[in-house]
Order: sequence, then C-alpha cells, then structure tokens
Amino acid sequence: MPTAISVITLLTDFGDRDHFVASMKGVILGINPQARIVDLSHNVAPHQIEDAAYLLKASCKYFPDGTVHVAVVDPGVGSLRRPLLVTTSRHFFVAPDNGLLSYIYQEETGVEVRQIENKQYRLDSEGATFDGRDLFAPAAAWLTKGQQPGSYGKLVQDCVKLPLAEPAWQGSMLAGTIVYVDRFGNLISNLTPFHVKEVQGRTRRSGVSIRIGGITIDGLVRSYSQGDPITPRALVNSNGQVEIFVKEDSAAETLKVRRGETITLA
Amino acid sequence: MPTAISVITLLTDFGDRDHFVASMKGVILGINPQARIVDLSHNVAPHQIEDAAYLLKASCKYFPDGTVHVAVVDPGVGSLRRPLLVTTSRHFFVAPDNGLLSYIYQEETGVEVRQIENKQYRLDSEGATFDGRDLFAPAAAWLTKGQQPGSYGKLVQDCVKLPLAEPAWQGSMLAGTIVYVDRFGNLISNLTPFHVKEVQGRTRRSGVSIRIGGITIDGLVRSYSQGDPITPRALVNSNGQVEIFVKEDSAAETLKVRRGETITLA
Amino acid sequence: MPTAISVITLLTDFGDRDHFVASMKGVILGINPQARIVDLSHNVAPHQIEDAAYLLKASCKYFPDGTVHVAVVDPGVGSLRRPLLVTTSRHFFVAPDNGLLSYIYQEETGVEVRQIENKQYRLDSEGATFDGRDLFAPAAAWLTKGQQPGSYGKLVQDCVKLPLAEPAWQGSMLAGTIVYVDRFGNLISNLTPFHVKEVQGRTRRSGVSIRIGGITIDGLVRSYSQGDPITPRALVNSNGQVEIFVKEDSAAETLKVRRGETITLA
Repeated sequence: MPTAISVITLLTDFGDRDHFVASMKGVILGINPQARIVDLSHNVAPHQIEDAAYLLKASCKYFPDGTVHVAVVDPGVGSLRRPLLVTTSRHFFVAPDNGLLSYIYQEETGVEVRQIENKQYRLDSEGATFDGRDLFAPAAAWLTKGQQPGSYGKLVQDCVKLPLAEPAWQGSMLAGTIVYVDRFGNLISNLTPFHVKEVQGRTRRSGVSIRIGGITIDGLVRSYSQGDPITPRALVNSNGQVEIFVKEDSAAETLKVRRGETITLA
Repeated sequence: MPTAISVITLLTDFGDRDHFVASMKGVILGINPQARIVDLSHNVAPHQIEDAAYLLKASCKYFPDGTVHVAVVDPGVGSLRRPLLVTTSRHFFVAPDNGLLSYIYQEETGVEVRQIENKQYRLDSEGATFDGRDLFAPAAAWLTKGQQPGSYGKLVQDCVKLPLAEPAWQGSMLAGTIVYVDRFGNLISNLTPFHVKEVQGRTRRSGVSIRIGGITIDGLVRSYSQGDPITPRALVNSNGQVEIFVKEDSAAETLKVRRGETITLA
Repeated sequence: MPTAISVITLLTDFGDRDHFVASMKGVILGINPQARIVDLSHNVAPHQIEDAAYLLKASCKYFPDGTVHVAVVDPGVGSLRRPLLVTTSRHFFVAPDNGLLSYIYQEETGVEVRQIENKQYRLDSEGATFDGRDLFAPAAAWLTKGQQPGSYGKLVQDCVKLPLAEPAWQGSMLAGTIVYVDRFGNLISNLTPFHVKEVQGRTRRSGVSIRIGGITIDGLVRSYSQGDPITPRALVNSNGQVEIFVKEDSAAETLKVRRGETITLA
C-alpha cells in the first residue's frame, strides 16, 4: 500500500464551463488545505468511460507514489453502482464501479478493491446527482489526511471490467485496435514494439506493413518530423504504442478512422 | 468577518486560449507565492453576468472559510462602474459592481460591501482594459496577505443587483424559471423541494406535475439513471434545485429550452 | 541569473482533452512536489509558434522573479531541433529552438541561451514524440530544485528567431501589424503609444487616424465601454498596444481581419 502524499488528480467529463469541478476542489481544500490538485482532464466526451480509462492509464504512472487519482465519468450516478477505492502498490484510485479502472486492474500490481461505504467520508446533500462532489472528492481528500483504506469499506472481488481489446493473430498478421484518438487526430493503437517484433519473427522480414483505414503504411518512422502533411505514417509513440499520424494534420480525418477500428501488422 | 487563508478562486469570461488568466495568476503569486489558486470557470460566455452569478452561487459555499473569490465578467471595464470588495461571514468576494454578486447579497450573512479605492492595491498600467490583472487580482492577493477590508475603501449601500427571478403563484400552480443550462444540457430551475411541498399542499396531491417547453413531466425521479435517452425527466439535483434532464442526452436540445424560460409546478 | 523559486508555467498546444498536460505535471511533481504549476495556455492552435510566442511575451513579465516558463509548441519534436534553456535577468525559459522565444531574446536583459544536453535531466522513454513530458518538464523541475543552468549544456549563439514584424514608415504614415487576435475577437497590434506620438509629431495633428480592414477609425478611446456594438474602435490596451475592438462583439469578424494583416496610423 502506498503512503498518501497530497497530490490529487481529477478526471471527469464535467467540462470546463460549469461549477462542477470547482465544487469538487472546494470540498477537497476544505478537508485538506495542503492538497495539491491536478486536473487530469475534464473534457472527456460525456459518458465516454473508455476514453477516460485510456487517459488514466496513459498518465497515472507519471505521478509520484501516493498520488490519489479521482475519476468521475459516471452515467450511473445515483443508481446502485458502487463507488470504489482501489489501492495499488503505488497509487490510490477513487471511481465508480463502471469499468473506468479496467486498465489499472490489468496493469498495476498489489491491486486491492474496496467499496466506499463509510458515511463519514461523505458530504450530506439533498440530491443524488453529484457524487463527484459529495462522495468521490471527500473520499480522496480524507486519504491525503491519512485515513486508512481499510476504514472505507469491505473488499470486493467482482468489480466491473470493460472488454479491453487485445491484439489477435490472423495467420501471420496481427490485428490490433485503435484505442484512442487525440486532439491532433493521431490514432493510438494497442500495438507495441513487442507486437512488431513478433510479426517480424513470423514474416521473417526486417520491416513491417501497417494496414489501417483501407491503406497500407510501409514501416515505422521515428518522429512526427519525418512525415509530410499528406501521407499517413506510423511510429512508436512515447507511451510505447504504435500510432498513426499525418504531419501537422489529422490522421483521423484523413483516414476517416475512429476509436475501435482495426489496425493490422503484417 | 472571515480570516483570510490563501485560497483564491477565479471566475471570468476570459476563456482558456489567451494570456489573460495566466497574467492574473502571475500577479497573485508575485504578491503571495503561497496563494492556492483555483479556477472556478473561465468559460462563462463573454459578458454573461447572469451565468457567472449562478456559477458563483452554486460553488462558493463548498470552499473553506476565508476563501477569496475573484469574479471578473466585466463588460464595463474602464468605465465608472465601481470595483467592489464584499465580505460575508465566511468569504471574501472581489468583483465589478454589475450584479455579478447578486446571489451573494441575497443568500449570505454578514454582508459588507466596499468600493476598492486604495491605489496601493493596484498595478500601474498604461491602458484601462484589464482590471482583472491590474486591480482585482492584486486586491485579492493582498487580502490573503492579511490586509484588512477596511483599508480598501468606503462602504457602499447602493450596489447593482440583477433582477433575480423568483417563483410566483398562478392559482395553485407555481411558475419558476430556468436559471442555468449546464454542459450536459440539463435545465436547472429556481424551484426547490420547499416549492414542491407548497404545491402539493395546495393541490392536495402527493405527486407533482412539471410543465416545461410544451410538455408535462409527471413526478420526480431520484437520479439520472432512472431516465431514458428519449424522455425528459425531473429530479432534485445535489444543489437542491429542480432540474430537467434527458438521460445521457441534452434536455435543452430535446425541449428547445434556454435560460430564462418558465417551468411550472402543478 | 535569477534564483529559482518553485513557480513553473506551462504553455503548449496540447489542448485540454488528452493526457499530455497531466503527464507533464506528474513528472514535475515527481521531481519537486513543492512546485507550483500554472497553466499559461494549452489551447494555442496546433503548431502555431507565433501565437505561443505572443502569449509568452504578454504574460511572462507578471510572474515573480525566478519563475520557470516551459513552452512546448513543437512541430519538430524528435527531429534535430535543439531543446533550449534560456536564462534572463528575471526568469528561466525552457523550449524547443524554433522561434518560440523570439520576443524574449528581443525584450529581456541578461539573456543566455543554452542547449539542453545533460541526459540526467531527461526521462527514459521508448518513443520520441513527447519531449514535453520526457525532456522539457523534467528540465524545468530540476531548475526549481536548484540545478544550475551551466549544468544543462553549452551556450549557443545561433538560435532560431521568428521574423518579428516591426512598424515601418510609409511617408508620414506608420504601418504596423496585427500580432494577435484574442478570444473576444480583439485585434492586437505591434503599435504602441510611442508610435502614436511619433505619427502625431510628423502629421502635426493632436489626433490620429487608424486604417484597418478597409475602414478608418478616428482617434483612440480609453476603454471598451466607450464603444458600441457595431462600430470598430481603437484604444491602447493594458499591455501598451494599440488594439481594435467592437464593444461586446468581435472586431475580427466584423472587419474580417486576421493575424498578420496591416494596421496604419496617420
């Protein structure tokens, strides 16, 4: 179990126009004025749990040990879906039980999942529409004040997991999936240098061909600067994932490809 | 009068693209490097004082005692409109005298309103277009350094107040107003559980009917998860206000309703 | 050379939807949990180095001495373009060598430019697409931990400079340039009160005429409140620059003028 420091990240689909995020921060600072709050993102498209899950996976590891990550993309707020506190060997996660933490369960070590039941860590509120403020924010803040995970509630084993796409062999070709499209229109896949090497082993070629959106891209370049403003190229990005880009343009628009579509290595 | 701690919130219509907000933060940190700055929102639609007033009302109470709230939606910048420092029993507010603090005057206790006159709390600047940076930010920062409200300027009695909509009886029906539309398209009214009970008392029914945008909604549900993606529903939200929503869709678009329109309880 | 305090500003074109900015903040807090991180802007249009250069110039001076400004609008990431550490008499700047710091070189004193070469200040990462996280963020964080600029790398003399527009005389008229268009559609020029006086000296008039977008504006007003919602007006803004505005509307849209177009004083 990590020791809590006072860094709390917030990941929501609340946007940056309304009072929602500020209310959560007010609650946190009311409990721990020393908390250091970092916005992970509040511009997840409304209710897009998959996107939020990816963003958390892609950035949480860069935060110091003991960081508390609060993730609230929560179409089921007010229903019976459970609020969770997850501890890993490095971090804490506070989120609804809707699959948002799927990558964390898969990739982190020392994972313990608890249902947040202790009413002491909850704000009283008339309505049931804003657990971000009334439940998740105070639960996170109390962790940074040294409250123990065991005091939050009982361990649970059956938490909800998204069906995360896994690369699959089709003969000597490996079919992966686009798991995220970023603001630049770059297409990020679940394929890694490990997969590239596996394919090269099967095809006995030193290069690799990438098929996506009806075109074939030959080989990987090293950086965006090796592309041109018309041709889609592929590289391994700094998170270790095969990514399709068009230099200073949008690969998503050029190729009409979105999250969930197939990308094939051969 | 509250004791100043070092939390300062910022509410503006400056957006998140330009240098305006960062300049304000630089000024604050230059005066008090220990200040903890929280963005309330910078994406208020340009010059929409009513929206800003609502956002401040909806979130300020969640901040710790002594917080300084800076609100700059200020179409009259550079005119004779007065800059104000308002103290309440819990918080400080720094804002132009244009009605932005109307809810604060109405709902808070211990309200004292002062004109900010002391030139010591002002940055020298050639132009007169950016009081957010030159006047409001330093005024707030000096409060967190222990400067006394009395040193800012004289008390004023005639500050500008928006004509805030109040629910009004029409026979046994109570007509309220949509006071805010959030990023999800939820329609937030000025009706509360108190009003619902009043109507139930007059109609002698245990339920309640809500009329809005040409349709009638029967009864209140408890959470968004009890709706469906087509039908507008009503609930009491976590700020204690009657709210119209469409599950995972926009009630504002479905009903073609905007801020200022009527919502009726019967 | 300034003494490092712990304020770090971030200026990027990474937007506010993805994990990029949060990853940079995580890296910084991992190195210096006491760092105070301020977002300058992350909504620079993708790859618009000129806009980023302007935003940095317009706001950096308002930050306390010792602030570290990180600016990453970096279409050449992964290429041979050099990463730079620039020290001035007040601040530090960390940025790619692509002209982003052009105004700093021109306006600040005590400028020293170094190439960041020391691998100790760099994160290991598989790919070469995210120097914001892997190089610039840790370089900045280590400065706030007291690392000396000299330890980063050798001095360079030939850094890239944008061709910054300079006002030029055309007879007794002075032709300037629109250098930035803000979120309100205000048109900000590189003309200052100094230029206005020069023109008045040559024309021997006490007033001044401004030509832009096919219209002529007579004289300067003092504040936005002196305009009306139809007529473009001119004023000197709080950064000391001649600015064209339409009260509570967009001068850029009214006049169909964009960055780079000419504005003439006569």
